[in-house]
Amino acid sequence: MNYIADVEMDGHLIDSLILTRALDKIMDLGGEFEIRKFSIGKLKNEPSHVHITVKGKDEPQLNQILEELNALGARLVDMEDARLDVCAGDMVVPRGFYSTTNHPTFIRYGGSWIEVEGSRMDCLIVVKEGRARCTPLHHIKRGDRVVVGTTGVKVVPPERPRERSLFGFMSNEVSSERPSVEIVRQLASEIVRTRQQGGRIAAICGPAVVHTGASSALAQLIRDGYIHLLLAGNALAAHDIERQLFGTSLGMDCQGNVTLGGHRNHLYAISEIMASGSIQNAIREGKIKAGIMYECIANEVPFVLAGSIRDDGPLPEVITDTVKAKDAMAASLKGVTMALMMSTMLHSIATGNLLPSSVKTICIDINPSTVTKLMDRGTAQAIGLVTDVGVFLPRLADEVRKMGEKGDRNA
Amino acid sequence: MNYIADVEMDGHLIDSLILTRALDKIMDLGGEFEIRKFSIGKLKNEPSHVHITVKGKDEPQLNQILEELNALGARLVDMEDARLDVCAGDMVVPRGFYSTTNHPTFIRYGGSWIEVEGSRMDCLIVVKEGRARCTPLHHIKRGDRVVVGTTGVKVVPPERPRERSLFGFMSNEVSSERPSVEIVRQLASEIVRTRQQGGRIAAICGPAVVHTGASSALAQLIRDGYIHLLLAGNALAAHDIERQLFGTSLGMDCQGNVTLGGHRNHLYAISEIMASGSIQNAIREGKIKAGIMYECIANEVPFVLAGSIRDDGPLPEVITDTVKAKDAMAASLKGVTMALMMSTMLHSIATGNLLPSSVKTICIDINPSTVTKLMDRGTAQAIGLVTDVGVFLPRLADEVRKMGEKGDRNA
Amino acid sequence: MNYIADVEMDGHLIDSLILTRALDKIMDLGGEFEIRKFSIGKLKNEPSHVHITVKGKDEPQLNQILEELNALGARLVDMEDARLDVCAGDMVVPRGFYSTTNHPTFIRYGGSWIEVEGSRMDCLIVVKEGRARCTPLHHIKRGDRVVVGTTGVKVVPPERPRERSLFGFMSNEVSSERPSVEIVRQLASEIVRTRQQGGRIAAICGPAVVHTGASSALAQLIRDGYIHLLLAGNALAAHDIERQLFGTSLGMDCQGNVTLGGHRNHLYAISEIMASGSIQNAIREGKIKAGIMYECIANEVPFVLAGSIRDDGPLPEVITDTVKAKDAMAASLKGVTMALMMSTMLHSIATGNLLPSSVKTICIDINPSTVTKLMDRGTAQAIGLVTDVGVFLPRLADEVRKMGEKGDRNA
Amino acid sequence: MNYIADVEMDGHLIDSLILTRALDKIMDLGGEFEIRKFSIGKLKNEPSHVHITVKGKDEPQLNQILEELNALGARLVDMEDARLDVCAGDMVVPRGFYSTTNHPTFIRYGGSWIEVEGSRMDCLIVVKEGRARCTPLHHIKRGDRVVVGTTGVKVVPPERPRERSLFGFMSNEVSSERPSVEIVRQLASEIVRTRQQGGRIAAICGPAVVHTGASSALAQLIRDGYIHLLLAGNALAAHDIERQLFGTSLGMDCQGNVTLGGHRNHLYAISEIMASGSIQNAIREGKIKAGIMYECIANEVPFVLAGSIRDDGPLPEVITDTVKAKDAMAASLKGVTMALMMSTMLHSIATGNLLPSSVKTICIDINPSTVTKLMDRGTAQAIGLVTDVGVFLPRLADEVRKMGEKGDRNA
Repeated sequence: MNYIADVEMDGHLIDSLILTRALDKIMDLGGEFEIRKFSIGKLKNEPSHVHITVKGKDEPQLNQILEELNALGARLVDMEDARLDVCAGDMVVPRGFYSTTNHPTFIRYGGSWIEVEGSRMDCLIVVKEGRARCTPLHHIKRGDRVVVGTTGVKVVPPERPRERSLFGFMSNEVSSERPSVEIVRQLASEIVRTRQQGGRIAAICGPAVVHTGASSALAQLIRDGYIHLLLAGNALAAHDIERQLFGTSLGMDCQGNVTLGGHRNHLYAISEIMASGSIQNAIREGKIKAGIMYECIANEVPFVLAGSIRDDGPLPEVITDTVKAKDAMAASLKGVTMALMMSTMLHSIATGNLLPSSVKTICIDINPSTVTKLMDRGTAQAIGLVTDVGVFLPRLADEVRKMGEKGDRNA
Repeated sequence: MNYIADVEMDGHLIDSLILTRALDKIMDLGGEFEIRKFSIGKLKNEPSHVHITVKGKDEPQLNQILEELNALGARLVDMEDARLDVCAGDMVVPRGFYSTTNHPTFIRYGGSWIEVEGSRMDCLIVVKEGRARCTPLHHIKRGDRVVVGTTGVKVVPPERPRERSLFGFMSNEVSSERPSVEIVRQLASEIVRTRQQGGRIAAICGPAVVHTGASSALAQLIRDGYIHLLLAGNALAAHDIERQLFGTSLGMDCQGNVTLGGHRNHLYAISEIMASGSIQNAIREGKIKAGIMYECIANEVPFVLAGSIRDDGPLPEVITDTVKAKDAMAASLKGVTMALMMSTMLHSIATGNLLPSSVKTICIDINPSTVTKLMDRGTAQAIGLVTDVGVFLPRLADEVRKMGEKGDRNA
Repeated sequence: MNYIADVEMDGHLIDSLILTRALDKIMDLGGEFEIRKFSIGKLKNEPSHVHITVKGKDEPQLNQILEELNALGARLVDMEDARLDVCAGDMVVPRGFYSTTNHPTFIRYGGSWIEVEGSRMDCLIVVKEGRARCTPLHHIKRGDRVVVGTTGVKVVPPERPRERSLFGFMSNEVSSERPSVEIVRQLASEIVRTRQQGGRIAAICGPAVVHTGASSALAQLIRDGYIHLLLAGNALAAHDIERQLFGTSLGMDCQGNVTLGGHRNHLYAISEIMASGSIQNAIREGKIKAGIMYECIANEVPFVLAGSIRDDGPLPEVITDTVKAKDAMAASLKGVTMALMMSTMLHSIATGNLLPSSVKTICIDINPSTVTKLMDRGTAQAIGLVTDVGVFLPRLADEVRKMGEKGDRNA
Repeated sequence: MNYIADVEMDGHLIDSLILTRALDKIMDLGGEFEIRKFSIGKLKNEPSHVHITVKGKDEPQLNQILEELNALGARLVDMEDARLDVCAGDMVVPRGFYSTTNHPTFIRYGGSWIEVEGSRMDCLIVVKEGRARCTPLHHIKRGDRVVVGTTGVKVVPPERPRERSLFGFMSNEVSSERPSVEIVRQLASEIVRTRQQGGRIAAICGPAVVHTGASSALAQLIRDGYIHLLLAGNALAAHDIERQLFGTSLGMDCQGNVTLGGHRNHLYAISEIMASGSIQNAIREGKIKAGIMYECIANEVPFVLAGSIRDDGPLPEVITDTVKAKDAMAASLKGVTMALMMSTMLHSIATGNLLPSSVKTICIDINPSTVTKLMDRGTAQAIGLVTDVGVFLPRLADEVRKMGEKGDRNA
């Protein structure tokens, strides 16, 4: 255990679990530690400070430990500039590259700290012209200079809010045994508050929103101004349009009968849009007069429809190249402060990968495994609600409208 | 294939799948058949008739086939009286005993047909003083005369309703991708109609009804006169009382916070009832003024609370002997025409075992496997709704109240 | 009810449920029927024949009924050529187009029957130069002549096999309460028999095959010659390569510890392949010496890796355009007779959409909803096994090897 | 915030999360704190010590906070004897009674510390003749003296093991995406080590162990001496016996075909046992020669069969009174050091309620919600494995046998 480094951490180390996790990581990775100094915040709002000497048996092990501690907010005591290395080819990365978390991150560069732009998990930090940018592997170009190691990198993980709120208390709960109606109320209140404070809300939706009959509730939320971005796939849009044109989704009518016209209406709906050239045109021509896509376009709410191999068609607005679709999603998510994920594992996890940890993230699904997997894949800030979107969303839309009107009267 | 029997079947053999299933069974069991006569109902409401010669390679195989066909409504062409055999001991049954289905059943006795009373699955038919009774194994006494074989036994399986209704159309669906709000409406309409026609509705509930915050919705349904029997366990009652006394269930408050007082309130609630002697007394003393148990007692709705090994306490009204509890459940279910099973696998399957197939049975659970298992265990008439009882039940109670009031005005 | 058509059906109408379903459909859609003639197969292997007059209240309703009956194998009694209409634009289809099932289909053209090539669900039938081709919406070009209505279209739905086999008996079962070891044996026997009879087996896999430690079992099946095609996504290939290069998958080591190196190894694995230019090159260079992708390339087993918005990278071999990926999947599936779907909802449903109903399809997943959705989306021939691929697949690979060796010795 | 108390805690406060949880609880319950003294263990194996002043706004709030801290191992600085109060009636408890955790607990009595016997959650501590006993509500008698408040009560929660083992690393994981075969190996190794060290292993099983074909694997584990107690219900025993007598379970044969004899064999099996008087007698008479129950009786492994309202029969050995059954379970669990819970929610949760937290507890189920609920209900030490018991258990039994033999040779 001759390889040694000294790190420091500040903040709510105890009640945010950060110190526990740090010591855990050291031991899990086979290292040792000595706590040099520890001053605990004596009162609730006082920060703590710790200085730890970390030991590893060789350099790779020590570096691994430092990397993990870094992700928890630890920084080396002896501050140097971040080290950079050059990429040998497009999408070819140097050994020991720094892989980002989804937390706010700073690097020491030319003696001072600069914030890394576009915070997002599992990316590299490219430094260019004095700016540092979070860059996904597929955008790495030969010759890019990227951060390697943890020297000169500082991460600021979110501290858990202490107030009594949906996000403070339920953190990560996925149990289905919660008082649902009360949770609707709390979520509605968060949504209304977010808009009042100028936040932006993204809805990430699967086609089950339409199948379960919740599409008019979602349309209402969009019309009422509570959704500022829609991320979905071809299926959601096609089912929504099918419902507007033929009253069915995947050939199932509003009463839940799977009898009329089968899958054909689905193809007709797409064909109808092809004839107009785009969803936008079809709406301008008056073919479609309501629904999720209608409200997006009528209210100038941007949307990204990403392609998948399950798609029929797809519709003209769908981005069939998945790399381009992901880039479009990433670009559209800038400035989003709240994400409502509903009934989609694919889009939820893909979006989770693009979000900074500061975005309030709620994942609503009847299948608990969607929520579990989202968190397993790194979107640790997500709150899971295991419920039936078909009854949950209508109640939510009504509650939001009621609270919003009250808020407007009071304002 | 020298063992031969001739059977006949009547009714909607084609559209109720009965003929298909009958030929299936013969072939699955390794038998052969020849269709002697088949007259098909030419129009929708005309019954069909078939006469089949069934062949088996030995007597046990033929008997097995006949047993299976019998459960589908087939009867031997040459009618003889049902054969009886005597039980050699308490709960000791003769080889070849006739095991009941949950369909209406008749036996030929003394040359004429008598209906078997207390139709219920997996029982024996005990014949005594000219009456035939469906009798569970644990009530079989030494000397009882029970039906053996299928001779002289006629079963009348239900024919699927052809009208467009929740029960006609959704048969056995367990998908979570249904238009939920519309299904609430259809179920509410069935509930209101059932009461108007003088039917009796049983609610079979697990404690999640309380945890998910739906207990006041269930209390409302009871108060409004739509529930005529409550079947549950110690947990539902104790949680309901805990909520009334302390505002928590299992230490979780109405906002879903698991912080206050832990499990202790649960024990207090039971202790409080013990001090009064019974739930009934506690209500009379004014300790409890609302909730599920309160409404049951205030509105004279009977209830059976059955014990389980998970129970704390239990409460005085709980029947801790499971055999006695099951008998009490069976007795209370007489005359019930609709069963609403909510968030309980144990009580749903136990109740399903006691119900005749004519009872409209809805199983509401967020876990699809509850519904699947209920049907696997023989309650084939059950409709499964995979939803969140916490938002579903409040909406259902409101919809029922609205429809009921309209119905009352129109009456 | 003045709109009338006469249809005929032949085959095992009773035991394959076909007649039941046909009468169901007529009534569900509000039509009426009269059975003109019905001759039942008197013995097990004799086909039945029925002639039905169908009535609708208007032409659209009658056409809808005829469409549904057609999918069940009914044909109009008065045979005319299939009617064709011209597509007004790319992906723009005429009203009343014939939407294909996944069953073998024939059209009457120039007075004689021709088989529709490339049988696959939810497509159009394009007729060109005397040949009829199943064509997905996105390949429809302006000017294409496509079949409209059901006139002159004949479908031959599969008849359920009567022999005692995995596929004959378990049809559509998704229960997790089956004797698992016995089912492994039956499936192994089907796999060995399929290869012996010259069939081709496709494996459709999600990354959980690697996470659960089953990748060497899959590699063994490929090496032993039992897998003839691999359909997967970027994640499976990247995880498999990560495991070969670093001994981890998504940073989880073979002991299931989530500690070492986090997600970074995943990106390294992709970067390593990028440096070589392709998986193929990396294997040629000796970077990778075992695993799923290695065995595919070493044994010349074709594979299609389809992109999704969840991907990191992706790897060079991944087809990122979902429309092109789907076309590549469709092309590769030609001649496949058995499909093993393992731990992937996205790829299972996408592949199911491309398969004719004659392909023996097994869907293995720990989540019952994957199986349920696959069947809901039209792949009705699929058998669902709810099990843990991590223990199931190793046992399957061993069982297949044992049976295969015995078979080889006997041959 | 005038109500004040001083508490102390010792041990691995940081890496066992204990300090974090303690500060959490104070804040969740609306209290305040000041950390008077904190000495951190500087090296891995050094304990920490903390002294905290806790403030509440009134006495009930302060008491609630103290109760929660007590469960985490905190004790009041000023030590007094535990306070006792008298129960006013059978099952009637005094306000403020101390509700036990499942951790080792000590009370100060007559100036010195005595250990509370029969550690188990949600009980009261009855003090009698100088001994303190963990007593469930239903055994509380009028006049019993029970501990109230947290004064003089000390709890020693388990510290998480730091070694690399199944229990150290996977704590509480329920993910289905784990390397299954490796986990079988680790669990097998724990089982073998447990027996070598003289530990006792309880198997808690649902009937799915038989349905999935794993009963011979369980029988093998019993015969090989690795199971020292069986807890189950009537269903497991009846299905096991049915399988021995008729080769079926619930009428499903070993090939998974649901065809032969239906549910009748199940009743026959029970009847056959009734005729012998007991399972024990039936085995002595040679009726049953293998299987789970046979091995239990042949190897003198005790078992408790607890009744439920789903039971047919039940068998003579079944304890139908749930209160008595629970008492029998509790008595039989004395000295058990490892609990294998397999495919049963009811028995797993009931047993979990009876176990001290020191028992290594593994819950194996294909349904993740069983595991989640077990932990929600307080059995926080349980490790969840989401897998298919039908393939998992046979592999486990083989692995255990192999390891055991090797161990025996080495010994």
